[in-house]
Amino acid sequence: MEIKDLLDQVKKGSLSVEEAEGILRKRPFEEMGYAKLDGQRELRTGFAEVVFCQGKADEHLLSIYKRLYEMDGRVFGTRASKHQYEWIRECFPQVKYDEVSRILRIDAPGDEERKLEGCIAVCTAGTADIPVAEEAAQTIEYFGSKAVRIYDVGVSGIHRLLSRVDVIQEANCVVTIAGMEGALASVIGGLVNKPVIAVPTSVGYGANFGGLSALMTMINSCANGIAVVNIDNGYGAGYMATQINRLAVGGNTHE
Amino acid sequence: MEIKDLLDQVKKGSLSVEEAEGILRKRPFEEMGYAKLDGQRELRTGFAEVVFCQGKADEHLLSIYKRLYEMDGRVFGTRASKHQYEWIRECFPQVKYDEVSRILRIDAPGDEERKLEGCIAVCTAGTADIPVAEEAAQTIEYFGSKAVRIYDVGVSGIHRLLSRVDVIQEANCVVTIAGMEGALASVIGGLVNKPVIAVPTSVGYGANFGGLSALMTMINSCANGIAVVNIDNGYGAGYMATQINRLAVGGNTHE
Amino acid sequence: MEIKDLLDQVKKGSLSVEEAEGILRKRPFEEMGYAKLDGQRELRTGFAEVVFCQGKADEHLLSIYKRLYEMDGRVFGTRASKHQYEWIRECFPQVKYDEVSRILRIDAPGDEERKLEGCIAVCTAGTADIPVAEEAAQTIEYFGSKAVRIYDVGVSGIHRLLSRVDVIQEANCVVTIAGMEGALASVIGGLVNKPVIAVPTSVGYGANFGGLSALMTMINSCANGIAVVNIDNGYGAGYMATQINRLAVGGNTHE
Amino acid sequence: MEIKDLLDQVKKGSLSVEEAEGILRKRPFEEMGYAKLDGQRELRTGFAEVVFCQGKADEHLLSIYKRLYEMDGRVFGTRASKHQYEWIRECFPQVKYDEVSRILRIDAPGDEERKLEGCIAVCTAGTADIPVAEEAAQTIEYFGSKAVRIYDVGVSGIHRLLSRVDVIQEANCVVTIAGMEGALASVIGGLVNKPVIAVPTSVGYGANFGGLSALMTMINSCANGIAVVNIDNGYGAGYMATQINRLAVGGNTHE
Amino acid sequence: MEIKDLLDQVKKGSLSVEEAEGILRKRPFEEMGYAKLDGQRELRTGFAEVVFCQGKADEHLLSIYKRLYEMDGRVFGTRASKHQYEWIRECFPQVKYDEVSRILRIDAPGDEERKLEGCIAVCTAGTADIPVAEEAAQTIEYFGSKAVRIYDVGVSGIHRLLSRVDVIQEANCVVTIAGMEGALASVIGGLVNKPVIAVPTSVGYGANFGGLSALMTMINSCANGIAVVNIDNGYGAGYMATQINRLAVGGNTHE
Amino acid sequence: MEIKDLLDQVKKGSLSVEEAEGILRKRPFEEMGYAKLDGQRELRTGFAEVVFCQGKADEHLLSIYKRLYEMDGRVFGTRASKHQYEWIRECFPQVKYDEVSRILRIDAPGDEERKLEGCIAVCTAGTADIPVAEEAAQTIEYFGSKAVRIYDVGVSGIHRLLSRVDVIQEANCVVTIAGMEGALASVIGGLVNKPVIAVPTSVGYGANFGGLSALMTMINSCANGIAVVNIDNGYGAGYMATQINRLAVGGNTHE
Amino acid sequence: MEIKDLLDQVKKGSLSVEEAEGILRKRPFEEMGYAKLDGQRELRTGFAEVVFCQGKADEHLLSIYKRLYEMDGRVFGTRASKHQYEWIRECFPQVKYDEVSRILRIDAPGDEERKLEGCIAVCTAGTADIPVAEEAAQTIEYFGSKAVRIYDVGVSGIHRLLSRVDVIQEANCVVTIAGMEGALASVIGGLVNKPVIAVPTSVGYGANFGGLSALMTMINSCANGIAVVNIDNGYGAGYMATQINRLAVGGNTHE
Amino acid sequence: MEIKDLLDQVKKGSLSVEEAEGILRKRPFEEMGYAKLDGQRELRTGFAEVVFCQGKADEHLLSIYKRLYEMDGRVFGTRASKHQYEWIRECFPQVKYDEVSRILRIDAPGDEERKLEGCIAVCTAGTADIPVAEEAAQTIEYFGSKAVRIYDVGVSGIHRLLSRVDVIQEANCVVTIAGMEGALASVIGGLVNKPVIAVPTSVGYGANFGGLSALMTMINSCANGIAVVNIDNGYGAGYMATQINRLAVGGNTHE
Repeated sequence: MEIKDLLDQVKKGSLSVEEAEGILRKRPFEEMGYAKLDGQRELRTGFAEVVFCQGKADEHLLSIYKRLYEMDGRVFGTRASKHQYEWIRECFPQVKYDEVSRILRIDAPGDEERKLEGCIAVCTAGTADIPVAEEAAQTIEYFGSKAVRIYDVGVSGIHRLLSRVDVIQEANCVVTIAGMEGALASVIGGLVNKPVIAVPTSVGYGANFGGLSALMTMINSCANGIAVVNIDNGYGAGYMATQINRLAVGGNTHE
Repeated sequence: MEIKDLLDQVKKGSLSVEEAEGILRKRPFEEMGYAKLDGQRELRTGFAEVVFCQGKADEHLLSIYKRLYEMDGRVFGTRASKHQYEWIRECFPQVKYDEVSRILRIDAPGDEERKLEGCIAVCTAGTADIPVAEEAAQTIEYFGSKAVRIYDVGVSGIHRLLSRVDVIQEANCVVTIAGMEGALASVIGGLVNKPVIAVPTSVGYGANFGGLSALMTMINSCANGIAVVNIDNGYGAGYMATQINRLAVGGNTHE
Repeated sequence: MEIKDLLDQVKKGSLSVEEAEGILRKRPFEEMGYAKLDGQRELRTGFAEVVFCQGKADEHLLSIYKRLYEMDGRVFGTRASKHQYEWIRECFPQVKYDEVSRILRIDAPGDEERKLEGCIAVCTAGTADIPVAEEAAQTIEYFGSKAVRIYDVGVSGIHRLLSRVDVIQEANCVVTIAGMEGALASVIGGLVNKPVIAVPTSVGYGANFGGLSALMTMINSCANGIAVVNIDNGYGAGYMATQINRLAVGGNTHE
Repeated sequence: MEIKDLLDQVKKGSLSVEEAEGILRKRPFEEMGYAKLDGQRELRTGFAEVVFCQGKADEHLLSIYKRLYEMDGRVFGTRASKHQYEWIRECFPQVKYDEVSRILRIDAPGDEERKLEGCIAVCTAGTADIPVAEEAAQTIEYFGSKAVRIYDVGVSGIHRLLSRVDVIQEANCVVTIAGMEGALASVIGGLVNKPVIAVPTSVGYGANFGGLSALMTMINSCANGIAVVNIDNGYGAGYMATQINRLAVGGNTHE
Repeated sequence: MEIKDLLDQVKKGSLSVEEAEGILRKRPFEEMGYAKLDGQRELRTGFAEVVFCQGKADEHLLSIYKRLYEMDGRVFGTRASKHQYEWIRECFPQVKYDEVSRILRIDAPGDEERKLEGCIAVCTAGTADIPVAEEAAQTIEYFGSKAVRIYDVGVSGIHRLLSRVDVIQEANCVVTIAGMEGALASVIGGLVNKPVIAVPTSVGYGANFGGLSALMTMINSCANGIAVVNIDNGYGAGYMATQINRLAVGGNTHE
Repeated sequence: MEIKDLLDQVKKGSLSVEEAEGILRKRPFEEMGYAKLDGQRELRTGFAEVVFCQGKADEHLLSIYKRLYEMDGRVFGTRASKHQYEWIRECFPQVKYDEVSRILRIDAPGDEERKLEGCIAVCTAGTADIPVAEEAAQTIEYFGSKAVRIYDVGVSGIHRLLSRVDVIQEANCVVTIAGMEGALASVIGGLVNKPVIAVPTSVGYGANFGGLSALMTMINSCANGIAVVNIDNGYGAGYMATQINRLAVGGNTHE
Repeated sequence: MEIKDLLDQVKKGSLSVEEAEGILRKRPFEEMGYAKLDGQRELRTGFAEVVFCQGKADEHLLSIYKRLYEMDGRVFGTRASKHQYEWIRECFPQVKYDEVSRILRIDAPGDEERKLEGCIAVCTAGTADIPVAEEAAQTIEYFGSKAVRIYDVGVSGIHRLLSRVDVIQEANCVVTIAGMEGALASVIGGLVNKPVIAVPTSVGYGANFGGLSALMTMINSCANGIAVVNIDNGYGAGYMATQINRLAVGGNTHE
Repeated sequence: MEIKDLLDQVKKGSLSVEEAEGILRKRPFEEMGYAKLDGQRELRTGFAEVVFCQGKADEHLLSIYKRLYEMDGRVFGTRASKHQYEWIRECFPQVKYDEVSRILRIDAPGDEERKLEGCIAVCTAGTADIPVAEEAAQTIEYFGSKAVRIYDVGVSGIHRLLSRVDVIQEANCVVTIAGMEGALASVIGGLVNKPVIAVPTSVGYGANFGGLSALMTMINSCANGIAVVNIDNGYGAGYMATQINRLAVGGNTHE
């Protein structure tokens, strides 16, 4: 049973507060030997647990997908390999895999018709930053907010960015993704009056040192209203952007 | 004339749209030779221009304070030295200086009675982080939000933090300030479901490398909903926290 | 002949002190051309020589296993590849390989029934740290101490850790293993009054720089009673934890 | 009243368990505005709270010394400046200051006659490392263990070290302090079978990068049984060495 | 005698080629014990020798100024302190010192009326970059090119820059000076079709690491036509910009 | 239709200004979903858009080649793999691939007979730097300038360089390419009076750290007239050298 | 014809000085298009040209081997792959390849009977350092000096080293090779009174950062008479050791 | 009594072997509490003990000078401050201080007339490197070798160096000192066939990072026969150069 259903039943009276509490109490700290699944996470934070697939053993990954599916009726995994997709698909034929973002998800019925709320702009400096941007954008959508994609607007061709400023300014929060010199965050920070979450990417060559150059640029930004997440961490940026967007639209729960 | 007054007059009809536009047009890019003051900044972003005092020549600093005072009726400066305070005080006896935060401000009449809105928690790991925390907290208050101070709750004595969790969870946004190992952000990130802005500080000794250790810890945090600003950048964290709090309370302007 | 047997025979009188000395004198600095095996190591330190398998040529590895087996009746190797396991197995069918910890060992008869003494807690922040943790835990057990495993208790879900505090506090020493932000060591350091050995791991992505981020966090810890070993060095942590545990239980020899 | 006295009174019956609990309950988290003093620390960890003097404002430092003196009857501060010594002396004429270690302490009556237990060796590579070594040694003595000082035995004159090996081998734990190339820890690690705590120091010049070179050497040591604390952190090394020594001598409390 | 005069006399016939050669032959490698002055430098490169004053002993500096004045009739020194100015002024009352750029120069008669050729734009991101910019601009002017100053046009207020684009586009070369995130070079690189020389500056705080952050941003720029000189090296940028401008205006000599 | 042809037709009257404007207006920001092709780039900068092939998906690469071929009649790509060459060749049999420089190009008819103007010297320290040098040299030639190759003249055999000095001194600009210690740029900088663009390369081993050592050497050069581009960025150096050479020969357009 | 033979003929009168000069003049800067072979190198430095095989294309490598064989009658290459060995062997069946040192050599008749002069000690800390040590030792032997190998004497088992001190002290120069903490150089530096050349190696794991840790240790050594070459640069150490040994034995030429 | 005199007396028979042994036995490990003076150092290594003055307390420095003077009749100290000079002079009026090299020495009678043997070239890139060069040159002279100074021959004016090549080539060993890009070592390495000891210096600005840039350049040198000592370590370079020169001139003792 999903948490929302459980709460609905409480609201409708078909489940007593005590019964609901009992069900919930069984959920936290699901001990799986190699991992502890957090069954009350969505209740506590408004965000269901998400699986970081990279490096997980096949059997472990499957067990986690199974258990989360039982608990929530949906599963959302990031950094999945194509092999992991094929492996999970044997058990869950309905699983969907996006090669660009490397997201591996099982939707609950009706998830696709959900109305997304508010607006978050997701901008990239180049085309090579798109995989990270899609991880951010799809995370945002999974958690119920609307994402507007504005790609390939790097500062070395500033007119491309300026032609889209109005769209960016309408968002409640901007996720800005760039590698190499990472200057896009500063320029956008100066153009909007909403929080900007900057994501350095590891793409590039030479003295970019796996994303360190972009990270340093973004951390040192002279523009106001910018904060930075880890290199290539599209998921983290999407998560925080959703928190901010929910505050703006006046709700804080997964709808 | 302050922007708000100008707009009020337009609303009341005592100033035509054209006249108002004419006044505003004169404001942007006030060229001062050594600097360009941004007269439309508050109108555009909801935040008045703030002065970064550190390293400014005495004469330049005074000119900037004078010009901003003429435009806005108030001035807010960060990283001011005691000498700069005494220098500005000769011309503006009403200027106030806080030695801890190093903020040097001239308030407009009534500023102190202003009602602060929403709630932002400002937490520090140790007592040495308080100067940065005060820069954040007073910035938050200057821009019209309420700041709750929770100091000296570092993770090596986790019970100190846990005893204050309820207060932190009520805030719309949490500013977390820590030096050395900087682990506080991760722990708080796991305890709240609101955005956390992490500020590494340069205080400490040994292998902290001027704040780099805390910066790396915070950027690598496994908790969700954390983003990082520059080392010692209390102002930047306070600014972004205000943006988020304004979104939460449903307004976006300096009231 | 194993050292303990030799000493037992001396004690029982079946071997004179002079004979024993003669046997032992032949042991040190066993020159193998490409390496010098330390035959008196266990006598001198209470710890038998352990093989670092990684990068060793097949023939060299086998010779070393053969020689140590002759001298001690058991062999313990770390960082072994699956290929090395298969290679050694051809000669020693009884060899055991653990794919998680990559430990490749030949036990002496009765080793498995040995009573383990004292108690060392081995904690990890995430599931990805388990290989390093198992290297530590199995090293601890090999050298005769008891290891209690407490995995996946990272600080971004502090309640998972707090629910196990009582177990951790009972240990004579705590090995704490974490990658990325590495904050677990500081939190545990504040919760126990026994020595904490921190092991940074290289797992993760982005700005973790192969474990450097966790290393810096741990070295800068503000908690007392923490010291750090090399990135991914589970063996080294297990070794030192055993030294400490032996001091606590009042013995210092391999039993 | 000191904790030990309180417990003694409970044992003797002159104080009921309930009364003792009431007194203790008042102690934790002594809120001093700018800091939280940990009144139950000694009870919980066996180590009284120690003051890190560096960077503390005069007034704050004095308040902390006063409060800890009230609670414990003794105060121990590290990294104190000569100015801080003179400042505290005005209020506490009995305070003692050691210019080498920069330790500023108020002893309780009888502290100097206390019998020190066990044995910890404190070794330095050069004479420039002595300030850090004295911070470690005096911390060890303050917490009730015996420290044996072996200074200026750096590896570039290995005979100096070898002539003292027997003394070092008798200790339950060895604190090894070195700057520049920091090789002493590895050599000692190979000569003893007890835990070695390595402290890199920032003294030197050239490519030592404020102690980073020694830190890297020590972390990469190929000897077993070595763990590393922060650059110049003599206090931290002395603290952990005391924990280990207490385990070896069979007690764990401040006697 | 200045080189140009010498050559003019050769051209006019008042000095034979052999005589001129004799005079010139005496000039190279003027050995001053502590330094080798390069008397043929202007002849060989079109640029007279310039003095890097920083760190030079008073007596040495004066000797160098005297000798260069004898050879060329003018002297140009960078990174001079106020003390050095006062010291040189005692011997050369006509020396001029600019506190912002720290340039200490003796002009030849008529130098100030010289017509400057071509056009080089010198842009800064902030006001704190002006000292480096002035070092570049005055170097450019000293070597005979025209410098247009465009200061405080950092990318966090992109409209300030865009309002000056036309001026920048008219230059033959652009010197771009910025600290902290250093993003200005990329934006300008995308707006002009002339070479851009980027100068990172060390001004700022936090994770700028003395200019390293800006250096990395600029080196990693995705815009075309950008190359980078050392941190704070205004002189070097001005020198190379002059070389380029001379190529554009069709001459290559100091006029 | 190529831009030059279009302009020629305007000049000849066979196309009205309005018609030309209409055609051009359709060109900028060609939105391809995953990328924005810059159709007016050549018009604006005198350099046609160049494709950075590395990491591009097959389908995307082909679309970009097709679109640029339509627009300009030629395509120039850098960092192409052999696989990408074979892939593009299926559609464009006339495509040419150079394995050394990894340049993948489609020429317009007559491109090969074009007269190259001015002169740029391209020097390398060793033979391993030749791939980067060829990327630079062929870029220079593609954009219409003449490149003179002077390879394997590293400073550890200074006579090899000195024997070619006269050729280098005749160029309008020198591209200097070196890995490891990267000292070649300084030596050449002291031998010529034209701008030197230095390219660090990542070739080598040991403490070269992927080109960082050469980058630091070049940035710190004491010679005048040197600026540095990113590690291995032969294209960027060739681009800027072309800009400078065009200024010298008095033209600024692709002829 | 080899240089020595040529000179012998001059001495014997079978070749006039002029003829010899003519032959030699043809040799320098043998231009091979992609490389410049230095035919007078042995004459000038006493060391024949050596080939750095790594990364060279097959055809280029073969041409170089052929040309050097023609000139000198022998070829010596370092960092050769097994593939390169097989490739060269097709043309030169007498070529010899050593898999450990990766040296690929063609000897001249009689080379193996050559008497080696003087003595150089080559020491390693561990067995993993042997490939670098063999590169050094075989280079030493190729250039005509005697190499004594002392392997696996790392400082964590100092007795292994001390048992060989007498042999090391007899050498004219010591090459010391170590990875990880690299402390061996300091200990040996304190035991001998001859020059020590230290070679950091990249072998190891964790925070060794590809050899940087050992490099920093060695550069910061407090022992006298130590200098450091690049990471893994066994050839460079062998070369310099030979220079020193030749000075000691009173000759400086390849005999 | 000096060691040489003692040995001479033994040779002449005025002192028995037993008496000499008795005198010598008293000398090693002179324990001074804070330091261990090495009285047999000269006997063992051919080099008397040298004092590193920097950071030594006044009283300690004086005691060390007194004791070494008693033992050897002369004292040689490096990195002395002017204050230390004045302090030592009160007790030893004959002490000499050189402000450039910061060497503080007491000579034995006749030291100045000593004949210096062999030849070592000491080269600097710039004038700012002279203090380090003088530390090297005077160390060389103190230990009895001849030093030839060749200053200000940096590679950006290669003709200055080439004009002195013949002098450099005559030396048995070359000490090469350079800051910033440090390229001088590579160029000299290619010009001579004797060992080159490279010393990076910390002088400069910008991205030289306290000498790290020059250190990296020198370590990565492609020239043969170069090894590197620590940043600013003129003494260490002079020491090793003397070792090499002594080997070349056939002796190894302080004459």
